[in-house]
Amino acid sequence: MSRALRAAYLGPEGTFTHQAVREWLALRAKGDDGGPGPIATGATAPGGPAGTAHPLATVADVHDAVSARATDVGVVAIESSVEGYVVPSLDALIGSPDVVAVDEVVLDVSFDAFVRPDHGELREVSAHPHGLAQCAGFVAASGLHPVPSSSNAAACRDAGPHTVALGPSLCGELYGLETHARAVEDFRGGRTRFLVLAPRDAAREHLGAARARGVSAWRTMLAVTPLRVGPGVLARITDMFARAGVNMSSLITRPLKARQGQYVFVITLDEAAWESGARTVLADLLAAGDSLKTLGVFPAPDLDVDGTLDPDHVPVGSVTADADSAEITRGLLW
Amino acid sequence: MSRALRAAYLGPEGTFTHQAVREWLALRAKGDDGGPGPIATGATAPGGPAGTAHPLATVADVHDAVSARATDVGVVAIESSVEGYVVPSLDALIGSPDVVAVDEVVLDVSFDAFVRPDHGELREVSAHPHGLAQCAGFVAASGLHPVPSSSNAAACRDAGPHTVALGPSLCGELYGLETHARAVEDFRGGRTRFLVLAPRDAAREHLGAARARGVSAWRTMLAVTPLRVGPGVLARITDMFARAGVNMSSLITRPLKARQGQYVFVITLDEAAWESGARTVLADLLAAGDSLKTLGVFPAPDLDVDGTLDPDHVPVGSVTADADSAEITRGLLW
Repeated sequence: MSRALRAAYLGPEGTFTHQAVREWLALRAKGDDGGPGPIATGATAPGGPAGTAHPLATVADVHDAVSARATDVGVVAIESSVEGYVVPSLDALIGSPDVVAVDEVVLDVSFDAFVRPDHGELREVSAHPHGLAQCAGFVAASGLHPVPSSSNAAACRDAGPHTVALGPSLCGELYGLETHARAVEDFRGGRTRFLVLAPRDAAREHLGAARARGVSAWRTMLAVTPLRVGPGVLARITDMFARAGVNMSSLITRPLKARQGQYVFVITLDEAAWESGARTVLADLLAAGDSLKTLGVFPAPDLDVDGTLDPDHVPVGSVTADADSAEITRGLLW
Repeated sequence: MSRALRAAYLGPEGTFTHQAVREWLALRAKGDDGGPGPIATGATAPGGPAGTAHPLATVADVHDAVSARATDVGVVAIESSVEGYVVPSLDALIGSPDVVAVDEVVLDVSFDAFVRPDHGELREVSAHPHGLAQCAGFVAASGLHPVPSSSNAAACRDAGPHTVALGPSLCGELYGLETHARAVEDFRGGRTRFLVLAPRDAAREHLGAARARGVSAWRTMLAVTPLRVGPGVLARITDMFARAGVNMSSLITRPLKARQGQYVFVITLDEAAWESGARTVLADLLAAGDSLKTLGVFPAPDLDVDGTLDPDHVPVGSVTADADSAEITRGLLW
């Protein structure tokens, strides 16, 4: 009997993060996903219990549990298609001395509406304020009184006989609720990306197992703190990527806590840190005097990132060189 | 008697955004701040009523009110030092055909704890879940039962006799509450930046008034949608800024809604769009075939962005070229 993997996550139970943990553990059980441990060796039956999920109260608690090896991995949300980066999770990773991301999980964010099997007249609809906002159309059409909750999961867990609670599909099973309506969010297609965190000194083991399983396309998330700031610093850094032919799929600037006007660049590049293009860039950055830290390496999604833009997708009000002069002036305010 | 300025904002009353509106209107009344209209001409007594603030329910409502000229300006939060960009506000600006930012307001985010003057035994502490999280130390030390609310302002407005409500200092005056404790947030120094939005066709009037008052240091927020994506695209763009000597104080990638793997770059540059370096860059980008849109031009904060980094401010776990080889390998995972 193999040891079950332990996965800590930012709770409470019944959140989208919990759902991400379950999906990751299920993939592990099927052997489709990476990491060390008995499951990757095939010692566990396909579809069998892959591990246990442990809710913790804060992102810092998840980091601490991973650092202390009280858990094998930790799972936190890192980016949403609607809200952008989850900055507290990002800042925790930037600031961590010994935790690194070794995998990711991407979930469609969809809310179901739940009621108790013994429910009476329905009068209230409850969710986290963000959940209520994301399902505003359903809430308005229901005519029910909106009641904020500390989390969608808490709304489901604590649902009374007069309450419709909104949350991930997981919550029905978890709290013994009936599904009243499915996919009640205003906009389909929202997705959240979660990182799977491990101790830095266990990263090679996780990534080696994924390589052994045949993962060959990677992304690396990197924090670059430039030696000097001012005009040209970002151009100097991005030039190194261009010369090495390494694509950046994301770049954001995060202010350094202690210094107004100074930044760390968080760059996601489309190679593993150990691949030749990435190694060239990392060596060039070091040679230039910058401070570097790999925040994570994980399998890349299957995306076509080369190609010409469809003009229909350009933000409305944008101008191009072939617009007339008045239109360009209006668009640019120059 | 001059016409009072109308400022729409993302409500409800008593939010930090409301406080930002009030500060902006007060600056207008003192003549310290920009924009067209009678106040900038000195027709209103210093400190006199500068205008009226109108809470609206959504960011889209604020945009609509500005577009339709039902209000002179609109105010929305755009960036927090803790949470990063307020992506729904950013996406609304990127997607707007006719609204642009013409000024900004920066507020220290500080929570006060309020009680009703006739309060009884205190049993509960109420705020938006984010407010409760930001004041977790105070909440824990109080021993009171945390109760989530749809907003901090709603917590203050609806405070019962057994409730301590957490919110901006404005809420005390607004809802007739007594201040129980000041600045109860866990971490000082959090700041939120708000944009003042105007119709694109009124932008020159606002900016011209600010120039007439002597504002000479500017920032421009720009959306660049590159003609082609793939390795090198960001280097090509940042090169143009470097060659023109224009500093970028922020850059983020935002996914284009319709196309996975394609991005719009949101860049804040340290010049007005009409200044010579910025004009050079904008013309170069147009010549390269990119689609451009100025999202805002506003007075720059007084920051020193040149200089060498203090090593104490580099994120822990970062490595530099002078680290030993094992340390570099551990930091980079290469």
